Amino acid sequence: MALDPKIVKTLQGVSTATITTVMLKKGLRNLWIRGSKPLRPGVERVVGPAFTLRFIPAREDLATPESWGNPISTRAAVEAMERGDIAVIDAMGVTDAGCYGDILIARMAKRNVAALVTDGVVRDIEGVLSTGLPVWSQGWAAPSSVQGLTFVNWGEPIGCGGVAIFPGDVIVADKDGAVVIPQAFVDHVLEHGPEQERMEGWIMKEVERGEKLPGLYPMNVETKARYDAWKKSLPGG
Amino acid sequence: MALDPKIVKTLQGVSTATITTVMLKKGLRNLWIRGSKPLRPGVERVVGPAFTLRFIPAREDLATPESWGNPISTRAAVEAMERGDIAVIDAMGVTDAGCYGDILIARMAKRNVAALVTDGVVRDIEGVLSTGLPVWSQGWAAPSSVQGLTFVNWGEPIGCGGVAIFPGDVIVADKDGAVVIPQAFVDHVLEHGPEQERMEGWIMKEVERGEKLPGLYPMNVETKARYDAWKKSLPGG
Amino acid sequence: MALDPKIVKTLQGVSTATITTVMLKKGLRNLWIRGSKPLRPGVERVVGPAFTLRFIPAREDLATPESWGNPISTRAAVEAMERGDIAVIDAMGVTDAGCYGDILIARMAKRNVAALVTDGVVRDIEGVLSTGLPVWSQGWAAPSSVQGLTFVNWGEPIGCGGVAIFPGDVIVADKDGAVVIPQAFVDHVLEHGPEQERMEGWIMKEVERGEKLPGLYPMNVETKARYDAWKKSLPGG
Amino acid sequence: MALDPKIVKTLQGVSTATITTVMLKKGLRNLWIRGSKPLRPGVERVVGPAFTLRFIPAREDLATPESWGNPISTRAAVEAMERGDIAVIDAMGVTDAGCYGDILIARMAKRNVAALVTDGVVRDIEGVLSTGLPVWSQGWAAPSSVQGLTFVNWGEPIGCGGVAIFPGDVIVADKDGAVVIPQAFVDHVLEHGPEQERMEGWIMKEVERGEKLPGLYPMNVETKARYDAWKKSLPGG
Amino acid sequence: MALDPKIVKTLQGVSTATITTVMLKKGLRNLWIRGSKPLRPGVERVVGPAFTLRFIPAREDLATPESWGNPISTRAAVEAMERGDIAVIDAMGVTDAGCYGDILIARMAKRNVAALVTDGVVRDIEGVLSTGLPVWSQGWAAPSSVQGLTFVNWGEPIGCGGVAIFPGDVIVADKDGAVVIPQAFVDHVLEHGPEQERMEGWIMKEVERGEKLPGLYPMNVETKARYDAWKKSLPGG
Amino acid sequence: MALDPKIVKTLQGVSTATITTVMLKKGLRNLWIRGSKPLRPGVERVVGPAFTLRFIPAREDLATPESWGNPISTRAAVEAMERGDIAVIDAMGVTDAGCYGDILIARMAKRNVAALVTDGVVRDIEGVLSTGLPVWSQGWAAPSSVQGLTFVNWGEPIGCGGVAIFPGDVIVADKDGAVVIPQAFVDHVLEHGPEQERMEGWIMKEVERGEKLPGLYPMNVETKARYDAWKKSLPGG
Repeated sequence: MALDPKIVKTLQGVSTATITTVMLKKGLRNLWIRGSKPLRPGVERVVGPAFTLRFIPAREDLATPESWGNPISTRAAVEAMERGDIAVIDAMGVTDAGCYGDILIARMAKRNVAALVTDGVVRDIEGVLSTGLPVWSQGWAAPSSVQGLTFVNWGEPIGCGGVAIFPGDVIVADKDGAVVIPQAFVDHVLEHGPEQERMEGWIMKEVERGEKLPGLYPMNVETKARYDAWKKSLPGG
Repeated sequence: MALDPKIVKTLQGVSTATITTVMLKKGLRNLWIRGSKPLRPGVERVVGPAFTLRFIPAREDLATPESWGNPISTRAAVEAMERGDIAVIDAMGVTDAGCYGDILIARMAKRNVAALVTDGVVRDIEGVLSTGLPVWSQGWAAPSSVQGLTFVNWGEPIGCGGVAIFPGDVIVADKDGAVVIPQAFVDHVLEHGPEQERMEGWIMKEVERGEKLPGLYPMNVETKARYDAWKKSLPGG
Repeated sequence: MALDPKIVKTLQGVSTATITTVMLKKGLRNLWIRGSKPLRPGVERVVGPAFTLRFIPAREDLATPESWGNPISTRAAVEAMERGDIAVIDAMGVTDAGCYGDILIARMAKRNVAALVTDGVVRDIEGVLSTGLPVWSQGWAAPSSVQGLTFVNWGEPIGCGGVAIFPGDVIVADKDGAVVIPQAFVDHVLEHGPEQERMEGWIMKEVERGEKLPGLYPMNVETKARYDAWKKSLPGG
Repeated sequence: MALDPKIVKTLQGVSTATITTVMLKKGLRNLWIRGSKPLRPGVERVVGPAFTLRFIPAREDLATPESWGNPISTRAAVEAMERGDIAVIDAMGVTDAGCYGDILIARMAKRNVAALVTDGVVRDIEGVLSTGLPVWSQGWAAPSSVQGLTFVNWGEPIGCGGVAIFPGDVIVADKDGAVVIPQAFVDHVLEHGPEQERMEGWIMKEVERGEKLPGLYPMNVETKARYDAWKKSLPGG
Repeated sequence: MALDPKIVKTLQGVSTATITTVMLKKGLRNLWIRGSKPLRPGVERVVGPAFTLRFIPAREDLATPESWGNPISTRAAVEAMERGDIAVIDAMGVTDAGCYGDILIARMAKRNVAALVTDGVVRDIEGVLSTGLPVWSQGWAAPSSVQGLTFVNWGEPIGCGGVAIFPGDVIVADKDGAVVIPQAFVDHVLEHGPEQERMEGWIMKEVERGEKLPGLYPMNVETKARYDAWKKSLPGG
Repeated sequence: MALDPKIVKTLQGVSTATITTVMLKKGLRNLWIRGSKPLRPGVERVVGPAFTLRFIPAREDLATPESWGNPISTRAAVEAMERGDIAVIDAMGVTDAGCYGDILIARMAKRNVAALVTDGVVRDIEGVLSTGLPVWSQGWAAPSSVQGLTFVNWGEPIGCGGVAIFPGDVIVADKDGAVVIPQAFVDHVLEHGPEQERMEGWIMKEVERGEKLPGLYPMNVETKARYDAWKKSLPGG
């Protein structure tokens, strides 16, 4: 389910904020994964297909270190991920049990997984940061997954941070957090996202020049004309 | 996956409180479905196998009235339930969208489903009560499921009220709420539940006679001897 | 801003659940006032224009019994309400200070106000119930408003239970809770609400006759034809 | 630490709402125990000295059924309560483990304890109601205390529902919930509470007669004069 | 409503912690805006008059990008702010829709607004930081305001982080967060704040010298005498 | 109650994550203090015996600056702490009143207290950081303790972050947060903790070499043999 590298490259130029704006025009308001923030402040934007994982609450006889050896386990899931995938983990918002820890995340990095996104937390913050894999989460905790969570499966529709995620949806994550682009809307974002970025960049320049906001943002007819003229003046405009 | 009627009958004599006590002896502390209370105060205890349903958060293009006509839908799920089943709905604790409403619940009653248990809410409280189906939930709300939830599937492991539920686990629900007995522990409850009930009933009588608690509950050796003597004096004791 | 009695009468026949359904067709998903439940279980449906009131958090020097004598006060607000109004109080969800108590509510009843709806709580539950005014709230508490709230004004746009309310919007409240119909959509509900009620009533009858859900709810073409025939058979159909 | 019966009788005529009002005049705004509601709707007002109990979170090796036999246990605490005491239990707001259940509460009733107040929940709702002991709580649950709580001690200062309670403070609980009167302020409430009740009763009558609120509540000079004249006209006035 | 520069200068030497201490002596305990933390860790203290803005919850037909062109809009509000103002935004604590984003905040910086304080979040963290305007908030998010909020007005009394704010109150914000000084109490803080800072600075030095806390903080008579002697020894003392 | 320096040294080599893992084998799942994070990101691991402190909610007449001069006060508590102790403060999770501030923490640093751990917040973040004392908390706030808390005592069993802490239990705190090792389990951690660290370090190396997770973590028989051989090859192995 690897993404076309051209799609990845285009979306790397579109912020998560912009994606929520262009999707609003399609009536979709619920795409930002609540509570999931980058673990490392200066992180670069990542783009990739969602590889989903699902947990349910812990039951003492199931959620044990022994369960880690099962054929359906958090370990086996890692081996099923592909280069460029973004693992999206439904941890039901649990913040006192780390759904993934440094060893599994190191293996994900080794397998060239692009990132990990969860509404839960990771474990062993120092080790996780040392793997270099970009992580978006509610933070971190010392306890392991089995202290609060039972792993169920990968490759299923999940909820994450109050948002519906289907396997193969496209995830974009940056300093503002992580958003999902449902598969059927990727073309919409590819078409309108870069233009929205260009327009907002031009408006920001106008603000820096001292322009007032009314009439500028959103643009009135006159401003629109000025903007269109500027666009035409661009190389290839 | 119908339950043996003898199992149902025995468990109807064991309270949810008692089940949590006898399961604690097996080290399982997390079996009570948080927040799910009987909609009708005087409800009788119900027992049945779990028929699980799973929702994820709403997405405006998916969670629509049109989706109700899909082959995998809340409607189709009802037709897959069997006599005596207890529908257990993972609504992720959402309280502002009713996962099921009066028409679907009326159909469940018609199909002799035993009960509905959810960590979410139902819709159209007056209609729901008029169906006669016993419901355990966080209450009720006017909005329909699609205003906050997307239906995914039935027959999967789910979380409900912070508890792991697998299809075929046994649900017992009464005035105190709903608990799950994992399949592997049903025999344990059948063996120890009724005796725990008998013992606590005897202790309550002793309290009513004016006995002090220390030595009585839990029983010391002397009290245990008195209790054993009483048990022997019972018909068939 | 009194409502046309014909509008009131028609809307008294449309449940809050049905209103959320017909408004969904207009893309409005957020109209149900979260957490606001009828104080008296068997309450009848009420309909009326919103008379809004707004509180902000308490400040010890402002939120005092003395403030109750101000020209802009909770008392003065009551005298500004008109017959048939529904007072909607933005209490910011505060549950440990009763925004209104039995004396003010008694005066509201005397003035033929139709109901009180709040995302906060009322005070002196016994006295409030004895006034006969229907109340929707998160419950009740002993402390007075000034222990947690400062009254600001009436007649302003407010938030209540996560929903935007403008003065003059129409409020409908019943056993399921309270919903707002924005002024511009009242005609839409008047047109589609009663038909939705009629249709769901017919479907419920079909369920009681033993019909399966798929094809029935939502209706497929064949069912639709049967329903239309039934409608035609009605007196005046 | 039994209360003078005259104090009990006087305070039984002062509502919890009124107590919060007269204490506000002393600058104390935080006396209402949040979340603690009467288990039985029509409950009568109770008054008594606080007998405090304290729990901390559960630890699997401590919070066991075996711990119930310890010299410092929830059982031993019951035997230390005196006739007329109100047991106030700091359960840290935990709602998924019943701090007290039907057997212990039956024993409390037998010992003529006046009531149980907690910010947690009780267990075995049917059994608890059958003991007749008035209970104020966040509701009820099936699991026992040891599934979430470790008992520490009785007779210590505690927090309950966000309020500080010291042993010997006076608790008043009615349909609106439970409030604490710190020992040093009991005389203040005895002096001002009954007059506040009388005054509000008179105001309510004026409202029923059709009087407007401004000038009436709070009273202006003229109203005050009318009220004083009415008081003088009372037998013994 | 610009503040006297001398007031600004004096208050820049008084920490928010100290302001809460000196206001406590006036019986005001609720002045710290909960949840609103500086976006940039090393931020300097800012002081200015409150320019208030108010949001209510989103309604899909109102909260649209089109609404940004209204005469009463978040844009128009920016143009009404004056040099030195601190914009205080009541976002009702909403954390999944950024009430203000980088373009509007850039314009605020251009207009020499002193800071932005909100109980909600901002949008496009990288752009916001690049404007240089100091921001206190619950953090940041990708979605725009219209995904969760409807703008109502500026210049009204608001709640922010559980605190009442009136236009023209003085805001002081530093590394500990943001507090409000109600207009009527500014003189009190100007009189007592600097002395409290001086005293605590002297106590800290004593601690560093190895003095014990009892008798030092708070000061007993002997310590007070030593402190007064030290103050007299200061230039101009 | 100073700890043997050898114990401190050994535990400084065992992460909080590893401690939760080895304690899970004893059935203890609830040892991580929720919400308590290091105030300074790069903090080193600290180990010491718990010196417990307990707060209850504020009451306006008790929680005053004057109370700071009482014999039982937050100040007196500091003077009772010993070199190497870790102060653990039960602030009931209150985040809008700093339980301890810079002056008291400076004195703790002077007395060679090892660290402060709380489920509440500290006050005057800049001053606190300048003392150099390592702090784990939910963050910080401007208001003082008396704005939300009443100090009760030190040296009692407490709850902190949902965990039971007894005086003399061993606290270990690092970048992942803080955990408690109950006294009776210190030997267990001393025995199994260092080996668990060694084993996970070896597994991490294997992952870096490109080994797959299944069979490696947890180890199957063959991997276990390789690991044992590696251990034997170590100096002294």
